[in-house]
Amino acid sequence: MIDKNSPIPIYYQLEELIKGLIEKGELKPGDSLPSEREYAEKYQISRMTVRQAFSKLVNDGYLYRLQGKGTFISDRKIEQPLQGLTSFTEDMQKRGMKPGSQLLDFKIIAASLQIASQLNIQENEPVYEIKRIRLADDVPMAFESTYISANLIKGLTIDIVHKSLYSYIEEQLHLRIDHATQIIESSIANQLEAQYLNIKNGAPILLIQRNTFLQDGTPVELVKSSYRADRYKFMIHMKR
Amino acid sequence: MIDKNSPIPIYYQLEELIKGLIEKGELKPGDSLPSEREYAEKYQISRMTVRQAFSKLVNDGYLYRLQGKGTFISDRKIEQPLQGLTSFTEDMQKRGMKPGSQLLDFKIIAASLQIASQLNIQENEPVYEIKRIRLADDVPMAFESTYISANLIKGLTIDIVHKSLYSYIEEQLHLRIDHATQIIESSIANQLEAQYLNIKNGAPILLIQRNTFLQDGTPVELVKSSYRADRYKFMIHMKR
Repeated sequence: MIDKNSPIPIYYQLEELIKGLIEKGELKPGDSLPSEREYAEKYQISRMTVRQAFSKLVNDGYLYRLQGKGTFISDRKIEQPLQGLTSFTEDMQKRGMKPGSQLLDFKIIAASLQIASQLNIQENEPVYEIKRIRLADDVPMAFESTYISANLIKGLTIDIVHKSLYSYIEEQLHLRIDHATQIIESSIANQLEAQYLNIKNGAPILLIQRNTFLQDGTPVELVKSSYRADRYKFMIHMKR
Repeated sequence: MIDKNSPIPIYYQLEELIKGLIEKGELKPGDSLPSEREYAEKYQISRMTVRQAFSKLVNDGYLYRLQGKGTFISDRKIEQPLQGLTSFTEDMQKRGMKPGSQLLDFKIIAASLQIASQLNIQENEPVYEIKRIRLADDVPMAFESTYISANLIKGLTIDIVHKSLYSYIEEQLHLRIDHATQIIESSIANQLEAQYLNIKNGAPILLIQRNTFLQDGTPVELVKSSYRADRYKFMIHMKR
């Protein structure tokens, strides 16, 4: 199943072959993979080539390595629908996973020009800055920074943020969260993101920027998130 | 504007500072950036730190380097709406950019189990496999592999693919393309993708898998694309 005469690189053929076995269910989450040496011997290819394929599959979240134990098949990625404006907490609950979050920072800062323009307020007006690690079943999934105008949403506390920000805005302040735009980009983890998400420096991440608006068009929230690309993917339905 | 006593790494502060200048329009596309040495002297930080910030900004598409000339501000990324099922050709035309595509491969293959299950056909049934580089104003944007059942869409030729596949299906075959699902993942470019897209090995890419369906639910097309993350981002509107 490896064609050495093909113009397609051998490491890439091996990647596709292993992905195929995972797709067919012949390799299941938690299964251990044959060693680099065994693959090299079986297909008469170099261990370097096998290592290259393994590394790509580790980076893309198909495999993971345990020191001294070998290489294993990962759990499937969480498939997050892009339609429907729900919070992380609501998403995880729907999915039957335990949502969690680790608060890193909660303070009021003077809005930079960039944040002010996104929230449609003046530069240096007070905004809450909330930095959190989002967890699903205790595994870190995303590093998130939230900015909210302190003149619009008054009385925010750590407790409220920890419980549910959207419930507070809708049920306590009686403001109607109405719509959002979301920008999706791909990047690689910097040192800080890698540390918070327990992934390697340079591993792929999904950058999500969400701008949320009230019914009258007032920006209510700006959220910048870095999701682990090895555990997360986004899905959308489209109509012609 | 660089705070050495902050727990936030200095390279990250410098990144944010440069992004801020771009956001405010104080640095415009095509502008040249002061050199690493000048930044290092201005903020009394190491050139290594400046280099780290520059490299991240190059990777993320904010900056680009020209050998022997310096570092420059990039054009803004193309913001692609995720709603509305349009073809690459239609997208580029709407945007006022010249769509182009470079055909790498066009052939009929026997469907692998993975492709067969996505197209809802039997393993080994004939499918067209079309590999292309998609260009916008002559710049490579995406590397794309398309799979189409040869029993469903008959008479496909290179000419048709080059002109507009959707027009052929809708206007010549009178089939109604109706909806699609799209999966968005983040990854890093392998050797092949890097070569085709003229980016570095390991640079971030956006992986898009689109499954397109006719009105009666028949899968009509499976497309796997790798978009350059330095030139592309996706956008979506959401309703609460």
